[in-house]
Amino acid sequence: MAGESLDALFRPASVAVVGASENPAKLGHEILKNIVDSGFHGAIYPINPKAEKILGLACFKSIEYVPDKVDLAVIVVPARAVPGVVDECGRKGVKAAVIITGGFAEAGPEGEELQNKVVEIARSHNIRILGPNCQGINVPYHPLCASWPLLTKKGRVAVISQSGTVAAAMMDWFSQEGLGVSAFVSMGNRCDIDEVDLVEYFNRDQNTSTIALYIEGLKDPPAFKKVLDNLTKPLVLLKSGRTPKGIRAAESHTRSLAGDDALYEALCKKYGLCRADTIEEFYDFAKAFAYLPRPEGNKILFVTTSGGAGILATDQAEKEGLDVAPIPPEIVESVKEVVPQHAIVSNPLDLTGDATAEMFGEVVSRTRGFYDVIGLIFGDPVERASQVVTPGGNEVVIFLGGADVERAEKAKMHERGVPVFPTPERAVKALAQLLPAHRKGKKETPPRVPQRKVDLKDTRLLSLSQALEYLKAQGLPCIHFEKAPNEGAAVHFAHIMGFPVALKVDSSKVAHKTDIGGVQLNVRSAHEVRVVFERMRKRYAEIIPDEAFPGVVVMPMAEEGIEVIMGAHRDESFGTVLLFGLGGIHVEIFQDVSTRLLPVSEDELYEMVNEIRGAIIFQGYRGRPPIDTRLIVEGLKGIAKIMETDGSIVTLDINPAILYPEEFVIVDARIIKKI
Amino acid sequence: MAGESLDALFRPASVAVVGASENPAKLGHEILKNIVDSGFHGAIYPINPKAEKILGLACFKSIEYVPDKVDLAVIVVPARAVPGVVDECGRKGVKAAVIITGGFAEAGPEGEELQNKVVEIARSHNIRILGPNCQGINVPYHPLCASWPLLTKKGRVAVISQSGTVAAAMMDWFSQEGLGVSAFVSMGNRCDIDEVDLVEYFNRDQNTSTIALYIEGLKDPPAFKKVLDNLTKPLVLLKSGRTPKGIRAAESHTRSLAGDDALYEALCKKYGLCRADTIEEFYDFAKAFAYLPRPEGNKILFVTTSGGAGILATDQAEKEGLDVAPIPPEIVESVKEVVPQHAIVSNPLDLTGDATAEMFGEVVSRTRGFYDVIGLIFGDPVERASQVVTPGGNEVVIFLGGADVERAEKAKMHERGVPVFPTPERAVKALAQLLPAHRKGKKETPPRVPQRKVDLKDTRLLSLSQALEYLKAQGLPCIHFEKAPNEGAAVHFAHIMGFPVALKVDSSKVAHKTDIGGVQLNVRSAHEVRVVFERMRKRYAEIIPDEAFPGVVVMPMAEEGIEVIMGAHRDESFGTVLLFGLGGIHVEIFQDVSTRLLPVSEDELYEMVNEIRGAIIFQGYRGRPPIDTRLIVEGLKGIAKIMETDGSIVTLDINPAILYPEEFVIVDARIIKKI
Repeated sequence: MAGESLDALFRPASVAVVGASENPAKLGHEILKNIVDSGFHGAIYPINPKAEKILGLACFKSIEYVPDKVDLAVIVVPARAVPGVVDECGRKGVKAAVIITGGFAEAGPEGEELQNKVVEIARSHNIRILGPNCQGINVPYHPLCASWPLLTKKGRVAVISQSGTVAAAMMDWFSQEGLGVSAFVSMGNRCDIDEVDLVEYFNRDQNTSTIALYIEGLKDPPAFKKVLDNLTKPLVLLKSGRTPKGIRAAESHTRSLAGDDALYEALCKKYGLCRADTIEEFYDFAKAFAYLPRPEGNKILFVTTSGGAGILATDQAEKEGLDVAPIPPEIVESVKEVVPQHAIVSNPLDLTGDATAEMFGEVVSRTRGFYDVIGLIFGDPVERASQVVTPGGNEVVIFLGGADVERAEKAKMHERGVPVFPTPERAVKALAQLLPAHRKGKKETPPRVPQRKVDLKDTRLLSLSQALEYLKAQGLPCIHFEKAPNEGAAVHFAHIMGFPVALKVDSSKVAHKTDIGGVQLNVRSAHEVRVVFERMRKRYAEIIPDEAFPGVVVMPMAEEGIEVIMGAHRDESFGTVLLFGLGGIHVEIFQDVSTRLLPVSEDELYEMVNEIRGAIIFQGYRGRPPIDTRLIVEGLKGIAKIMETDGSIVTLDINPAILYPEEFVIVDARIIKKI
Repeated sequence: MAGESLDALFRPASVAVVGASENPAKLGHEILKNIVDSGFHGAIYPINPKAEKILGLACFKSIEYVPDKVDLAVIVVPARAVPGVVDECGRKGVKAAVIITGGFAEAGPEGEELQNKVVEIARSHNIRILGPNCQGINVPYHPLCASWPLLTKKGRVAVISQSGTVAAAMMDWFSQEGLGVSAFVSMGNRCDIDEVDLVEYFNRDQNTSTIALYIEGLKDPPAFKKVLDNLTKPLVLLKSGRTPKGIRAAESHTRSLAGDDALYEALCKKYGLCRADTIEEFYDFAKAFAYLPRPEGNKILFVTTSGGAGILATDQAEKEGLDVAPIPPEIVESVKEVVPQHAIVSNPLDLTGDATAEMFGEVVSRTRGFYDVIGLIFGDPVERASQVVTPGGNEVVIFLGGADVERAEKAKMHERGVPVFPTPERAVKALAQLLPAHRKGKKETPPRVPQRKVDLKDTRLLSLSQALEYLKAQGLPCIHFEKAPNEGAAVHFAHIMGFPVALKVDSSKVAHKTDIGGVQLNVRSAHEVRVVFERMRKRYAEIIPDEAFPGVVVMPMAEEGIEVIMGAHRDESFGTVLLFGLGGIHVEIFQDVSTRLLPVSEDELYEMVNEIRGAIIFQGYRGRPPIDTRLIVEGLKGIAKIMETDGSIVTLDINPAILYPEEFVIVDARIIKKI
């Protein structure tokens, strides 16, 4: 669907620039000029009621005066004039319009109203709209640069961006490096065309091998997930708004919910998207996916003119889970023949300052079959370096410290489609993105814990006893507990259970019991039970004065084991995210959790368990017995089933469950249901 | 001392190039040409027995034929000829020599011998040597480029490097950006002049404001520490060889011990060095220290043309511990006057695509007094941007997506000494390095745990009971324990203590008891004691067959509390490193530890405790009582005192001690002493 309608946008036969200007300082001039200078093959119509000719092209008072068919209109008139122009476009039969003009939804309620009006008019005429408030499009293959600055280099990456500047920076870097892009699309306010249409379109575009998408928030997550179901190309995602203040800034900027970062992390995991953390990674990763073949494994040999750069590369490779494996004994002699006499045959292989391009070539041809990747580090002005690399071969090229020779050789390599990275660390990090998931090193910055905003208007919290009873009924193993409405009952149950016990406020009003002193572990005597009960009662009365104290839950202290958290949260638009991690400060400080979007396979559940950094603890740690991870998988499966069968559950947090070698037991839980 | 002797190297009145060549493809030609073309003011003497004139300069058969005084010799002859040349230099009264030639210690034992000979000859003549196997020096202020390629731009950073390529890359970037350097020094094999001399020299050099040092390992840590005691300038350190394979590569490359990364981390902490993780950070951080004023606090305002770039900057700022603080109410109206009408006055402050340089200037002048730093993000081709920034002001400038305008404006800003960063993330990260230590965010990659290589030849391990007795005698609180040479004794003591107990092998042969199943916690009955004892005895006999089983230590199980590790390790050259962290997987997986070199002040000890990421647990966590961190500080103080008073202790590991609100108790320890 997107395909057909977006061809008018990306492959128009004719273009009108509404608001074309004679004044070179104005955007309406620059865009017209760039369309002309980019070599657009079709008809170009400047629209301006006051001019006769602009840049030698006949000018029309209105688009309706254009004698021929117009496929695409690029609109640069002031905001208040845009609805009228779109209406004229409609009457003229224009199929798509790019609205560059700002001052719409991003500028406040008045602008939003204006934008809604534009959408309404466009719909009535069946016109697809890109923007408003955007930096246009640039399609070097068509060719058509309805944007600025003028860049014409053809490449493999389609850059799609909610931010004009992020896209412009990418475009500038790809252009400066002589790699070009397959397309540049600035989405602006996304009043109509959005990432759903565009990813679908460029997934089918034959000039595009990799999609680079920058967003502050998805417009329509369910629709986007459908597109991802059919995605066949690598997609590199830069999603800003990851920290609390970043999220606030993103929400203010886009006037929409930026969404919880953990949801995006789960989305990336599910669909195998490559997530970049910074704009520089966004560039490097897109470049790697577009120009490097995907390695089959993680075995890498570094060949270098610089010992120092080789060590830095090795350090980074270790961090990223690559294997800097020794040179196989059977080829050591063969390698020795072609390296300088005083070079030591090891990995990294330092050819020393005596290295020549030809030596690199010889080493590559003698070692290529023994490694998944060969990292070539030209750490000097190595002349003719470009002649010894093979486009599509298993080399990754790094060039630094080579000054003018470096720049000349890099340009030649880029011309041949061999990407060159400026530092060992950036190259290795980019390369590592191409590895199969299970080969990758464990991330130092794991996914954030979802920040579950509970809207109490439409949901209700179960009390602890209700939550545990619910879980028990669903077949999950909970600790024995009793509800004690008063001190006497609490003491009674504690005696029966035997000390020490735990006391927990049994409230359906308080989501975080510990914040109000509502949890006391290791209560050791009847006297202590009374003191704790009374303290909890008093505190509760202070904080929730209009409700009677709901009493406590009494439970025996669970034996020491491994604390884990398991949970799930249903997001209206993303779907349900399952979460697993070690409990306590592991979640809060180290954020060592794994997440997946439902549905999940059993394999994915094992992945979830094993991908947390602390997973080593399950293998039997410091003389402790190992944990059967099947237990955890069964627990997660149980939670997934609940979320799938009981649509009323919004949030289910088991925090913690205690793991023992052959069982686990849930000791605390929080459930939020829809009313 | 370094000052006087190194002036001959960096400020010579005359230079000879021994091995000068007529062939433009040879280094001996290029270096001579670069000395000439860099504008060296003094006399230049090519030395070559076969040529009459090179580059128009009269050539001499040997340095001894030069009629006048020669301060500096640059030597490019083959390795085997170098000793003779150095001897001639000595007879001629040359004060310093740069030996470019490779094939010395880096090439194997024969080369090492040759190098030793060179050193011996140089010493006998009192000549200081840089190199061999190096890329020379470049001092744009003198000016003198005895290196390659020819770069002449004067700047503020002295780049000192064990790797020619790392230095060349830095030099190239500083040159490409129009910032230049104050000096470039490639140390090569460091047969004489090393980082100790060079840091001392450039700390006093008036053209240098920042020192950037790349090393694979320090040559002489104690001497380097002395230099650091007197350091008055910022020093940015890139130390490669941080991962196991990286360390091995570094050791192979430099033929010396790369040293434990944790030692370098402790050194950086002690002397306030700024440590870079990658070569790109090395550049960015040096640039920031040299060209940005140090902010007084961490309050930052972002002013941007790009909402997206503003959000990315905010995300990074949050990660780095900067405070993206709201715009103070008292200046909101004043800011509103100068921003576009539809701009929202918040932080980040998005001036939208309508922004002009003048708007930036106005906003800066109205907000400057209210923030420690103002981040200006020119995310478009903002003309005249360079006119609204103030050298030495509290702005940090980011420019991206601006294509040719960006490059032109950046060049103008660099000309004025205002550094420009290419992405929001790189700028914010670099800026954050300048913050006072206590303002910085907690690092995601904390220091590595020292890998203590125990050389059993010169040291001995105390058994557990010896270690605990030693610590007790030093006044540290240890858990009660008994030595049980046989099963009967173990059962007897267990009965007296009451079950459960812990059994630990009491060996002075096994450094890691758990590796041989030598620790069993929670032993619950006399029967279990017997079973465990027997299992330990059997296992011990298998692994250490020629020693009788030393018996076990029996101790009661400590009550649950917070496990911490405290330790110290004496390094022959660095001194003693103190270490603190949470126990268990926190050390091994998350490496959440802090380190300091002794001696330490009490303030530093509190810093150590609070800087680990898990420190939040001491504040009373999840309803648990808070821990008095003074307890930990007292414990660390006790360890520091032991290390200072008992020179025989090499390694002291308390792992773990269990912390309670008002006391702590040591339950396991390892001590290694010198014989």
